[in-house]
Amino acid sequence: MSELKGAAIFGQSGGPTAVINASAAGVFQEALKQGDITKVYGAAHGIKGILEEKFYDMSKEDPYELELLKTTPSSALGSVRYKLKNVEDDETDYKRILEVFKKYNIRYFFYNGGNDSMDTCNKISKYMQKSGYECRVMGVPKTIDNDLWATDHCPGYGSAARYIATSTMEVYHDARVYDQGMITVLEIMGRNAGWLTASSALATYAGFGPDLIYLPEIPFDLDRFILEVSDLYRKQNKVIIAVSEGIRDKDGRYISEYSADLSKNKDSFGHVQLGGLAATLVEILKEKTGAKIRGIEFSLLQRCAAHLGSLTDVNEAVLAGQMAVRYAVEGKTDYMVAFERAAGAEYKCNIKLVALEEVANKEKKVPREWINEAGNGLKKQFIDYALPLIQGVSAPPLENSLPRFAKLKKVLAPHPNVNKEPVSIFAK
Amino acid sequence: MSELKGAAIFGQSGGPTAVINASAAGVFQEALKQGDITKVYGAAHGIKGILEEKFYDMSKEDPYELELLKTTPSSALGSVRYKLKNVEDDETDYKRILEVFKKYNIRYFFYNGGNDSMDTCNKISKYMQKSGYECRVMGVPKTIDNDLWATDHCPGYGSAARYIATSTMEVYHDARVYDQGMITVLEIMGRNAGWLTASSALATYAGFGPDLIYLPEIPFDLDRFILEVSDLYRKQNKVIIAVSEGIRDKDGRYISEYSADLSKNKDSFGHVQLGGLAATLVEILKEKTGAKIRGIEFSLLQRCAAHLGSLTDVNEAVLAGQMAVRYAVEGKTDYMVAFERAAGAEYKCNIKLVALEEVANKEKKVPREWINEAGNGLKKQFIDYALPLIQGVSAPPLENSLPRFAKLKKVLAPHPNVNKEPVSIFAK
Repeated sequence: MSELKGAAIFGQSGGPTAVINASAAGVFQEALKQGDITKVYGAAHGIKGILEEKFYDMSKEDPYELELLKTTPSSALGSVRYKLKNVEDDETDYKRILEVFKKYNIRYFFYNGGNDSMDTCNKISKYMQKSGYECRVMGVPKTIDNDLWATDHCPGYGSAARYIATSTMEVYHDARVYDQGMITVLEIMGRNAGWLTASSALATYAGFGPDLIYLPEIPFDLDRFILEVSDLYRKQNKVIIAVSEGIRDKDGRYISEYSADLSKNKDSFGHVQLGGLAATLVEILKEKTGAKIRGIEFSLLQRCAAHLGSLTDVNEAVLAGQMAVRYAVEGKTDYMVAFERAAGAEYKCNIKLVALEEVANKEKKVPREWINEAGNGLKKQFIDYALPLIQGVSAPPLENSLPRFAKLKKVLAPHPNVNKEPVSIFAK
Repeated sequence: MSELKGAAIFGQSGGPTAVINASAAGVFQEALKQGDITKVYGAAHGIKGILEEKFYDMSKEDPYELELLKTTPSSALGSVRYKLKNVEDDETDYKRILEVFKKYNIRYFFYNGGNDSMDTCNKISKYMQKSGYECRVMGVPKTIDNDLWATDHCPGYGSAARYIATSTMEVYHDARVYDQGMITVLEIMGRNAGWLTASSALATYAGFGPDLIYLPEIPFDLDRFILEVSDLYRKQNKVIIAVSEGIRDKDGRYISEYSADLSKNKDSFGHVQLGGLAATLVEILKEKTGAKIRGIEFSLLQRCAAHLGSLTDVNEAVLAGQMAVRYAVEGKTDYMVAFERAAGAEYKCNIKLVALEEVANKEKKVPREWINEAGNGLKKQFIDYALPLIQGVSAPPLENSLPRFAKLKKVLAPHPNVNKEPVSIFAK
């Protein structure tokens, strides 16, 4: 353990979750307690806030509001989707980050995000090492997609899964209320990994869930899909289907593109913007079956539903933030905090550290052996994996029976040189 | 008070809500206690179950499961959208209902629904009177739309409003997470009355709600809408808009029809099937503002979210069912149970009775004076009206952190004449 005194900065990156602020609370509360950490900053909009020298002094916040972050969804500091270029191609951003770190004596950098964000974290870590500037860099995992490599699961997933399972159980009741036939298509997030869509199987496990579940892990065959749905519709008059927004055919083409050319809508990571899959399948099934069909998109609701948080998830998100700080203060750097499930019948996860470069840009998918042979449902192994992750109730405190979310003051950190070396427009 | 001994039947009709089963629990629990009521039936799919002589013997249900109905969404008995013809045009259904009532000695008929269902209830009540068959008929109000006449509000509305306000507050946080501009369009149910869409103003009241709210009470002017949104977008970079699915232009044309001809999709009450409004507005706004826009449809979720129930709403739904039974046993008939708000600062509602014919087919809209002058937001009067209705927390008990909903046995009532007069295929 080597002592390193200096400021810490924390940033949130990528799509928000119901618990990304819980990790923020973990980082801030822990960092504010650490004697080696002289200042605690929160970057506005992740890496962008660092590049633009826009960050908040977290010591100015009311501790009660920091505590409320644990049940406040989305990214309280603002998030970002900004991909750092490779340092060999363009060093500009890296130089700027180093300059800012030096200016504020930032010696601890914590970054909370998914695969892309761990790539950012990894690149910055390696650049700091190469530059000989001592800065401890720790990734804190989050993503509702649950697709981060080398960790049992990701904070954010459990709460989203609890929301999806609960809402699916409720829709199940609504969707079979009339005695006429009906097919319901639930569109669930997840670009390449089917973890979120698979969580609808928890509703089936509880007795009120989808009959058919299609994940992006299995190439989607439209003809077979129509047959499977029609067959079930004939037999039981009511069918509920859960589909991942990311399902693709054997040629890799998104099914959502079947009715719309979405190629012009690319976000800054180069991903195609998905959506409209439920609507597409509704049109196709309407024509093929003649049934009454409803498409439901869980949309943003599934990633911000703090009112249906999993306490396990929230506690682990806080823990991931705390442990990132403690490990860094102890001298660790260049790692992501990860979860390792202990053996045994009872659920228990331990914290471990994984090298950032092991995690960056890699994706973890639902294992083929957890999906049934027909490729349209989940097996018991998945339930055993996912059920512990949604346990326990987390919800924000209420005011007038509505959530009381955190309200941060967001006091901008003053530029440290402003008063020391006033800039004159009259050059020497 | 005149004594009337006989069976009671209860039916659920129209679109389900989070608390229609709570009224069922109120009716069943109360009816099972009443000595005058010899049998308690639950009609499968409302009036259709009566016509088809398909109903359940509710005394066979486990009392715990009946209690769980209070937190189980949708219509446990099955609902129906079936419009009785006017008796002058076609008496068939009426004769059949009378026949069934006589066969089972049904002397109490309770019907739970909205305007259309109160019309059914009224027609049956008048036919029984005309036929000289003593049967006490009571309507039990329900509708998330809150548009029933002569009652302060309707069971089902408070819970849907609490869901909409809470989810809107969560989406608010998610929708402003990036520093790029963004417009979010929330599509909320409500064909002719804007009560549900207005409930999103509760989120604004709590600090995290829509900037603009458009109700069907005000003719929708697309050009003005585009101006209002663009103007706000320029000023604050983030705009959240709540729109009722039922908004129409000054010529009465649904805005959702602007991009799609939905005229072929009519349900059996002759209403146009709505949907796709958010998608339509997203396309229009994208073209006009160039902003990133997301449309979110609360869809069925808003009417079945028992996990976010309002305890006030649930308790009132149970009470409405109980009181319908008590009043009927006391000799009242041809009424709907309604709520009357007591004067005073503290919220209190009393039960009153309203003649069925006063309620049938009428709609109550949001008063113009509760909507702001520009027609794009709600005034304090609406908050004062709606806030008490969402108070208190109701949620189903949990098993594995997922809702434990009621599981009814649904034991079909045997046809009473089957054993007395066996039908022989060898005719005399």
